[in-house]
Amino acid sequence: MTATKSICLLIVALLSLPVHGQEASLMGFTEKSAATERETEAAYDEKITPSNLDEWMQYMTAHPHHVGSPYDKKVVDFMAEKFRSWGYDVEVERFDVLFPTPKVRKLELLEPATYTAMLQEPPVDGDPATNQTDEALPPYNAFSIDGDVTAELVFVNYGVPADYEELEKRGISVEGKIVIAKYQGSWRGIKPKVAAEKGAIGCILYSDPEDDGYYRGETYPEGAYKNEYGVQRGAVMDLPRAPGDPLTPGYGATQDAERLDISEAEGLTEIPVLPISYHDAEPLLRALGGPVAPSSWRGALPMTYHIGPGPAKVHLQLEFNWELAPAYDVIATLEGAEYPDEWVIRGNHHDAWVHGANDPISGMVAVMEEARAVGELAKAGMRPKRTIKYAAWGAEEPGLLGSTEWVETHADELKDKAVAYINTDGSGRGFLQAGGSHTLEKFFGQITEDVEDPQTGVTVFERRKAAEAVGGTDIASFPLSALGSGSDYSPFFQHLGIAAFNMGFGGESSGGEYHTMYDSYAHYKRFKDPDFSYGGALAKVAGRTTLRLANADVLPFEFTRMAQTLREYGDEVMKLAEDARKQTERENRLVRENAYVLAADPKEAFSAPEEKEEVPYLNFAPLQNGLGRISELADDYSAAAATELSEGQREEINRLFMDLERQLTREEGLPRRPWFVHHVYAPGFYTGYGVKTLPGVREAIEQRNFDEAQEQIDKLGEVLGAYADQMQNIIGIVATK
Amino acid sequence: MTATKSICLLIVALLSLPVHGQEASLMGFTEKSAATERETEAAYDEKITPSNLDEWMQYMTAHPHHVGSPYDKKVVDFMAEKFRSWGYDVEVERFDVLFPTPKVRKLELLEPATYTAMLQEPPVDGDPATNQTDEALPPYNAFSIDGDVTAELVFVNYGVPADYEELEKRGISVEGKIVIAKYQGSWRGIKPKVAAEKGAIGCILYSDPEDDGYYRGETYPEGAYKNEYGVQRGAVMDLPRAPGDPLTPGYGATQDAERLDISEAEGLTEIPVLPISYHDAEPLLRALGGPVAPSSWRGALPMTYHIGPGPAKVHLQLEFNWELAPAYDVIATLEGAEYPDEWVIRGNHHDAWVHGANDPISGMVAVMEEARAVGELAKAGMRPKRTIKYAAWGAEEPGLLGSTEWVETHADELKDKAVAYINTDGSGRGFLQAGGSHTLEKFFGQITEDVEDPQTGVTVFERRKAAEAVGGTDIASFPLSALGSGSDYSPFFQHLGIAAFNMGFGGESSGGEYHTMYDSYAHYKRFKDPDFSYGGALAKVAGRTTLRLANADVLPFEFTRMAQTLREYGDEVMKLAEDARKQTERENRLVRENAYVLAADPKEAFSAPEEKEEVPYLNFAPLQNGLGRISELADDYSAAAATELSEGQREEINRLFMDLERQLTREEGLPRRPWFVHHVYAPGFYTGYGVKTLPGVREAIEQRNFDEAQEQIDKLGEVLGAYADQMQNIIGIVATK
Repeated sequence: MTATKSICLLIVALLSLPVHGQEASLMGFTEKSAATERETEAAYDEKITPSNLDEWMQYMTAHPHHVGSPYDKKVVDFMAEKFRSWGYDVEVERFDVLFPTPKVRKLELLEPATYTAMLQEPPVDGDPATNQTDEALPPYNAFSIDGDVTAELVFVNYGVPADYEELEKRGISVEGKIVIAKYQGSWRGIKPKVAAEKGAIGCILYSDPEDDGYYRGETYPEGAYKNEYGVQRGAVMDLPRAPGDPLTPGYGATQDAERLDISEAEGLTEIPVLPISYHDAEPLLRALGGPVAPSSWRGALPMTYHIGPGPAKVHLQLEFNWELAPAYDVIATLEGAEYPDEWVIRGNHHDAWVHGANDPISGMVAVMEEARAVGELAKAGMRPKRTIKYAAWGAEEPGLLGSTEWVETHADELKDKAVAYINTDGSGRGFLQAGGSHTLEKFFGQITEDVEDPQTGVTVFERRKAAEAVGGTDIASFPLSALGSGSDYSPFFQHLGIAAFNMGFGGESSGGEYHTMYDSYAHYKRFKDPDFSYGGALAKVAGRTTLRLANADVLPFEFTRMAQTLREYGDEVMKLAEDARKQTERENRLVRENAYVLAADPKEAFSAPEEKEEVPYLNFAPLQNGLGRISELADDYSAAAATELSEGQREEINRLFMDLERQLTREEGLPRRPWFVHHVYAPGFYTGYGVKTLPGVREAIEQRNFDEAQEQIDKLGEVLGAYADQMQNIIGIVATK
Repeated sequence: MTATKSICLLIVALLSLPVHGQEASLMGFTEKSAATERETEAAYDEKITPSNLDEWMQYMTAHPHHVGSPYDKKVVDFMAEKFRSWGYDVEVERFDVLFPTPKVRKLELLEPATYTAMLQEPPVDGDPATNQTDEALPPYNAFSIDGDVTAELVFVNYGVPADYEELEKRGISVEGKIVIAKYQGSWRGIKPKVAAEKGAIGCILYSDPEDDGYYRGETYPEGAYKNEYGVQRGAVMDLPRAPGDPLTPGYGATQDAERLDISEAEGLTEIPVLPISYHDAEPLLRALGGPVAPSSWRGALPMTYHIGPGPAKVHLQLEFNWELAPAYDVIATLEGAEYPDEWVIRGNHHDAWVHGANDPISGMVAVMEEARAVGELAKAGMRPKRTIKYAAWGAEEPGLLGSTEWVETHADELKDKAVAYINTDGSGRGFLQAGGSHTLEKFFGQITEDVEDPQTGVTVFERRKAAEAVGGTDIASFPLSALGSGSDYSPFFQHLGIAAFNMGFGGESSGGEYHTMYDSYAHYKRFKDPDFSYGGALAKVAGRTTLRLANADVLPFEFTRMAQTLREYGDEVMKLAEDARKQTERENRLVRENAYVLAADPKEAFSAPEEKEEVPYLNFAPLQNGLGRISELADDYSAAAATELSEGQREEINRLFMDLERQLTREEGLPRRPWFVHHVYAPGFYTGYGVKTLPGVREAIEQRNFDEAQEQIDKLGEVLGAYADQMQNIIGIVATK
């Protein structure tokens, strides 16, 4: 590129930018380096070519490429070769992880009628990929134990704890029964976990057409939604306890690692679990008697939903090959020109349950296009200041295995060198969604005001803002949601305390292909992002995030958003305790007044609730004091002033910022799940993917464990204190200016 | 009955009563006459015999008995004979009313496939009544005009105004189309009215299985719910404009009354309307293309719901016999011992769409049992002080014709003599529900604490209170809901300003039989109130209401509940205006910011909204001043003190109380519907049955007619002033004591 052209691009870029007033300068950049960065980004945008994403997706989804499959290795080699060609140092790191695949899958209805479940997804017209059944893994849940059980069936709605409370009200127990639960309402692995806690001996999962089928829209291949045969595969390990290889808990599954015996493997289910289609579920559900299910439980099958137990009796038989399989992580490194030991890591997984056009290839090809563009910039003299590592993770689907093993293997180096981790996964047409550490919310907000929405020409922030406004909420800047789990940011963020993002576009590309045979290139091309323009937009948003973190003079963290967010979470948990107390008082009064009995229909089964332990008043002062300190300090840091410090001071601040998120962790982790050390964000123990903020305190209150709630408040107070100390250190340096 | 037995009964009655503290005495009774009344009520309860209800229902539902049918006359003669045998003066008043019955009913799908609708309800096993198809009216909507139309079909959800706003957002017009709307969400007659306003040329109504079918529970005959062939019949005249005979608007349809020509008949639909089953609806809905319906529109048929228009094209052909039919009102009078010119009127209709076991016979047989017991009491020397009139109304189903024509015919005498009107209709097992004038809420509350719930042994109030508590609301006394329309109280209450009640039991007897061939004795006996114990309880509640009003020394009206209720309604309409203003400001801002366009999916049809007229500030002072006066005066009346006045003063007060409710009316009626004169309670112009309180003001705001809203506030202020004046007159008399 010539200098004249660069300047023209810069002018065009500046003219096309919205006016930001005070925030027009880039967070973390001096005015001078901001100009250079704008120039770099304009050149970057020029290089983003959506047709590349299309071409690579076609190759990478040409065959099923699950963990351990021949085509998975081909995809890995393809990517490694690409990264190399773009100027990266590429390493393919192999971990050998436990990956069970099905040997026997059998599900029969024995009484009062008989039916044998198909457990297969037939090919559909117009989508040749769906013919490749021989190469594909059939529908199953990875990390279900083997089992051969026969019992009466009980319908348990979504199979979350609240559903079992409804069963108790009706005097229905699942002890010794097989449960059938709808997908959704929680991450799938929660369903067998709760069922086993309640005494069930087997668990069937199915996708109801109301949540995921014809109720939503026309089904595949006529439309994008789940047809009657589609089955959602997926892992059911105890993910919110710990992801990763069950045989190497807490350390890397390298070739020579010491492994547990399979009988000692951690996080497998307690009972056998099998996912089925709504075609297979209907005869089972129709065979149920007992009370009519509560209205919120009913789905869209043309029948009356009953709970059971029985007369439906089912036989479930499952056996798996309990073998190790290779998880390949492709790590492509572009060493930083100025700070090679400060790493910005940008990743996406590459393994799929079948072809995985949307999940994960739509995100993976955006990462590749980013890497290609950044590689070209580097070749043209615009090498980033910090090291960028592009990662293509293997074995995400069975339980974030590839990323977790890599993080566990390189934990010490990562704690020392990682600036942030930026994750994507499936993405499509629609609105930008992003979650992450709120210390980076303001930084990310600037980026969302610099990237154009492909369909409307306004910025991706403006479009999201419009959607929020029409939905009833006015937002002044882009909001980051809190991160739970479900993709590869989890080991970075929640296990090591590295600031992280997860992002993607969606909302105008929904469908029923998730983890089925039908998540194919043909499906993606018709229903998700036909011209890959949103893949391009994702490359621009995530690429800017990566580039700005890599090039900033001072890392663009700040405190006001985190302070405000923590205050909201704190208010929530205090209200949770207060509401629980009032609710308990009220319910206990109703028990004493016999109101539940009097309100119940005497002709229907009913089990009256009993009085509960009253909720004590908790001492929230440690939390409040911590929040108070953070709030008071938050405004004292000026990101703009920090850029004017000496080089040495900036490096010192950067160092402190790299350790900032880690102040929110405690070595000992959360109760009953030491792997999760972050005390602000964690996946819920009973939600699986869904986040619980201030998890130690919040979940203890939810579980009515009030002694533990008090302990966790005290510990959270310490954590917030350490965070405030780190804030003071940083602010102190700026004050010396 | 001997004196000894009476005293024993009295003691038993007193011992079994809950303690009411200050309110232990009966409202409107001196202590002495309260003791007599308790004795009378204990004797009354003794006489209530549920098996009578069962026996009469069997006879009265043995054949279809719609308006003009041979068996309707048999039922009338049967009841007249019964009332006579119990000591009543019985008059059967005949009105000749317009009652269209079907001649041609045809509905066909012409494109893209063909289907001819069955329009029939087949007999079911185990219910012989369902074989009587030759005697029954087939499914149709009474007062649909004749028509023969062919057009593309559009699915309009419930067909209420909000649904057409959703269509507009998608740029879909129903101009020249035939619409198909789900039953529910409004009274059925609203649907063709709104459809015609929007330019549709035909209207099909159907019961979706989500609202009324297998989604709710097992279908008939396996269970109580609507099977695929069941069709809800019903009137579609413009009821909230005026009920009654369309040929004699505002006056009685006596034999020699002057009648409009049928071409001038008022309140018929503008377009042809036909109700169908979900069996017949499914092929039509499946043939629709266009956008997928919003999620709240979708039902429980196993398909993707689309809006259209087309490609479905349908042909609807309807012709009716436009003939007069006799509506027979059975009026059974027991003259009052002391105040024969003060009438307490207790009624229920007797005509059915087919057999009508639930609607209306379950309520009618309770009225009969009440009349039998009161008749026996009278024979035993316990004749009520005031005149009681038991009414069995004809021709309620096509549009409250029998009651309305009777009220219009006897309007002057009723204004002079009526104390109150007490209505029932279908009733079953469950919880007491009642609506009425809030001047009588406290009075009615006492009754609900004196009648036992048949299943639990606590009072019907205690049981309702328990259900409310479990639902989240604590109630201290029985709440009366506000009355809209849908049964025979409407002409008394809203046309003449006579205080009224409507009551029944329900909540544990739901089903899908309403207005179908399947509302039979067999269905009622299995699913509604198998032992008629709730029929007995209804006779005790409604009977006490009647007896206490008939025997009170001072009519048991009071002001505090009305004052409080009016205050709530007043706050609601002021908030409505305030919310509308804020909402309009916000929406206009979003229009100017282009948010609706940016938030919309560019690949889907979308029509951007335009700015609306801003909502002006209204002068609510006339309303607030009226409410203020009523609130201030409310506590000044002591019901207990009033019973201690002289006989003459009590008579004077009673006279004033009989005119009290009428102070809330204005001769000119509500805008565009002069028949409705009550300015506190009316059926909604766009809800049909559902009430709109302070209707003149509320509906003007809802319709964004702000000039009219101001006019109506001023008029409401006058009405409230007149009410306060009447309160002062009454209070003044008590003060002279």
